[in-house]
Amino acid sequence: MTNSTETGKLYGIGVGPGNPEWLTLQAVRVLHSCQVIFAPRAQIKKESLALEIVKPHLNPDAVIRELTFPMSKSAKVLDEAWSEAADAVEKELRAGMDVGFITIGDCMLYSTYIYLKRALEQRIPDLCSESIPGIPAFVAAASLADIPLGEGRQPLVIVPASGDLSRIEWALESDGTVVVMKVGEKLPALREILQNHNADGPAVLASRVGLARQCIVSLEEKNRIDTETAYLSLALVPSRRNSDSELKENP
Amino acid sequence: MTNSTETGKLYGIGVGPGNPEWLTLQAVRVLHSCQVIFAPRAQIKKESLALEIVKPHLNPDAVIRELTFPMSKSAKVLDEAWSEAADAVEKELRAGMDVGFITIGDCMLYSTYIYLKRALEQRIPDLCSESIPGIPAFVAAASLADIPLGEGRQPLVIVPASGDLSRIEWALESDGTVVVMKVGEKLPALREILQNHNADGPAVLASRVGLARQCIVSLEEKNRIDTETAYLSLALVPSRRNSDSELKENP
Repeated sequence: MTNSTETGKLYGIGVGPGNPEWLTLQAVRVLHSCQVIFAPRAQIKKESLALEIVKPHLNPDAVIRELTFPMSKSAKVLDEAWSEAADAVEKELRAGMDVGFITIGDCMLYSTYIYLKRALEQRIPDLCSESIPGIPAFVAAASLADIPLGEGRQPLVIVPASGDLSRIEWALESDGTVVVMKVGEKLPALREILQNHNADGPAVLASRVGLARQCIVSLEEKNRIDTETAYLSLALVPSRRNSDSELKENP
Repeated sequence: MTNSTETGKLYGIGVGPGNPEWLTLQAVRVLHSCQVIFAPRAQIKKESLALEIVKPHLNPDAVIRELTFPMSKSAKVLDEAWSEAADAVEKELRAGMDVGFITIGDCMLYSTYIYLKRALEQRIPDLCSESIPGIPAFVAAASLADIPLGEGRQPLVIVPASGDLSRIEWALESDGTVVVMKVGEKLPALREILQNHNADGPAVLASRVGLARQCIVSLEEKNRIDTETAYLSLALVPSRRNSDSELKENP
């Protein structure tokens, strides 16, 4: 494709987990400056969640385009969807448009933006891009649930539940706070692991943080998570070490 | 202390690591609503860094008070400083003032706010408080350095360098991205650990993220970190696993 226009700039914009007030000033400014906004959405949802979050801050002149990603385990189906998404974004960039790709939470943390940017860098070798950091869901959840993520010398471990569950057991060895992302159908297995580690007491399940039907409850209380919410649920397992004495370091 | 006024509300306000544009809309709103703002500063600095960050967004009528925390390893010196800090905040709350305590990064992640709130909850049993999440330094650093924090099923491990260095070796076992906080004088030791794990290649040292004299370089390039910057430096050690195939999950 040849084009007399200069290639546009790609912005990954982390929009935080749900509350539109968790957008940063930088995200608001960049949202306003983009001519095209791409919003990913899962097939299961009627509307892009990221789009819902930024709605109050959209430039009325911007073109909004939703990219649908199918719920599929077929590599072929996923590859096709990704290839179509990259095609659509590439086209706008090559037409000289500044493109924002909005993503729930932060754009460098379990975000589709990481993959999209990589695909576009292969297509446009001199791609100009910038990532705008966003509040990760677990950071907002910790504030809402009043659970410290890290104190003093404690580590903090974030593990997706979608992987091998032995990772969670490994994480619990750390004695720091453990965050389990996308708990979903792994809820019973997670509870069992925590019970075996005597760590089930104060663990909290946070779902739809900052969104309608936000729910922050003890992990013990929750018996099931519906499919729509499963993707947006995480567990916070607080450290069992009291590190008051360690904490008094300098600010 | 008896007082006819209702006790004020305590806000922990995460202000992000440096760039004032990384403040959230919520942080800006709450900063404006507080009658008193407490800003922690290390004795080593002439001014509170957190205060520098929020300056463009301060309510001109708010009372600004700096709390100085000494650089000391003496438990007695630290306890006294902490007790004085809690006294000062307690007094304002009991006078009915809404108090904001600003903290670099996020208020639940290695922040003095965690300890201050705990101390105040002991003094004021019915304390009303709210934490406003902020962009953690490592999240902003990842965007600037263009290093994914987590992809697909990879874990993410954050370890303070101030602790036992074997924790870093443990973290590297995960095959996920590892963040080492407050690298400082541990730089040579960290480099040695990474070399032993064949993980030294693409690791990045990010210091003063979003501030004047921001520096993002390969860990290999950096030979020393000055005392003032040491506290504000972190290392990002990217995962060695390419998880493109895992990443194509739903957004």
